[in-house]
Amino acid sequence: MKIGVVAGNVWSSRKDEGLVGVKLLIISLQDREENNECSRRVAADLIGAGIGEKVLITEGSSARNMRGLENSPVDAIVVGIIDEEKIGAL
Amino acid sequence: MKIGVVAGNVWSSRKDEGLVGVKLLIISLQDREENNECSRRVAADLIGAGIGEKVLITEGSSARNMRGLENSPVDAIVVGIIDEEKIGAL
Amino acid sequence: MKIGVVAGNVWSSRKDEGLVGVKLLIISLQDREENNECSRRVAADLIGAGIGEKVLITEGSSARNMRGLENSPVDAIVVGIIDEEKIGAL
Amino acid sequence: MKIGVVAGNVWSSRKDEGLVGVKLLIISLQDREENNECSRRVAADLIGAGIGEKVLITEGSSARNMRGLENSPVDAIVVGIIDEEKIGAL
Amino acid sequence: MKIGVVAGNVWSSRKDEGLVGVKLLIISLQDREENNECSRRVAADLIGAGIGEKVLITEGSSARNMRGLENSPVDAIVVGIIDEEKIGAL
Repeated sequence: MKIGVVAGNVWSSRKDEGLVGVKLLIISLQDREENNECSRRVAADLIGAGIGEKVLITEGSSARNMRGLENSPVDAIVVGIIDEEKIGAL
Repeated sequence: MKIGVVAGNVWSSRKDEGLVGVKLLIISLQDREENNECSRRVAADLIGAGIGEKVLITEGSSARNMRGLENSPVDAIVVGIIDEEKIGAL
Repeated sequence: MKIGVVAGNVWSSRKDEGLVGVKLLIISLQDREENNECSRRVAADLIGAGIGEKVLITEGSSARNMRGLENSPVDAIVVGIIDEEKIGAL
Repeated sequence: MKIGVVAGNVWSSRKDEGLVGVKLLIISLQDREENNECSRRVAADLIGAGIGEKVLITEGSSARNMRGLENSPVDAIVVGIIDEEKIGAL
Repeated sequence: MKIGVVAGNVWSSRKDEGLVGVKLLIISLQDREENNECSRRVAADLIGAGIGEKVLITEGSSARNMRGLENSPVDAIVVGIIDEEKIGAL
């Protein structure tokens, strides 16, 4: 999974049926230790993440392993909202 | 998913049977926050996107989850045409 | 899919059974708008692409969706030979 | 697979059911020979890796091939803790 | 597939059951035309590649299409040892 921050929303009316009713969020990925090369993804969200929240993103076929998205053509989803992350020993 | 802009078309006559009748678009991906490193993909389009339109691209095995492409050797599709995107709080 | 140019051939005698009889081409990918960072792939070719031809490459699990490669451990194939590509409006 | 070092932990309370009870580690990937471009992943860990340990990370759909994660929306897992790595002839 | 050179070995004793008995090689990928950005992978090897040999690497779910690795959590395998590669016309 990758860590990202919810940056915004995307709306689409002409789309595949499998995406109808699915909330789509713009995510700024934080997958580099130096943050000078940010990537943007659009992820389906069934959990209810809000702007500015840190989230866990699952990509690829595993994105369809989430309840409710098995038949959707999605390749990125929000699987969790991060409460805390800690670098180094506990 | 990634956001992209439809940049052009590709035609191929000698191709896998699974691609016969499938419209192929050249997409400029906008998956970096700094736009100085644009990637190009060719995506199958069943939705009817036109040159210059902003679209949502699904890659990988999830591209075959779109009705009509289950048996095609495609790894990138247009899943939606973007009406609006908004960065930051609503 | 990605656009590439057939750059050469690869031969292997000690290999997985699923690759026996499969032609393997070296492909220079043209997936960046600025061509200063070329990537190289080896793709299975059942279509008959020749050196210097522009081709469409499908990667990942979708590569096994091509007739004749369902049981091969391939992750990149030539799905079509490009006749023409056009950037901008028709 | 990629080699990485366990850098920390991530906690999430609002998450997909498939992640309940799954330990999530922050991994610094060491997938470049020059270490100036480190990538960060979050990987599920059923093996018991600790901070600072070198681990093997499997990504993509193969991550769901690990016993206990078949139905989880995970795209990266710890498949092994590295005892020793050796560059060059034995 | 990608071309790589076998650079070394990795040993792991605490690992997923699916990796027991599987030889793991460190591979220097040669997937860029300019070799200044080498990537490192760990690939499962059932073919018997040796240090310094040029090999073909298959990544992703296709890696599990190799006889003997169907149930292993591997995302990269050696599918062949390269005898010869030729750039340009025959």
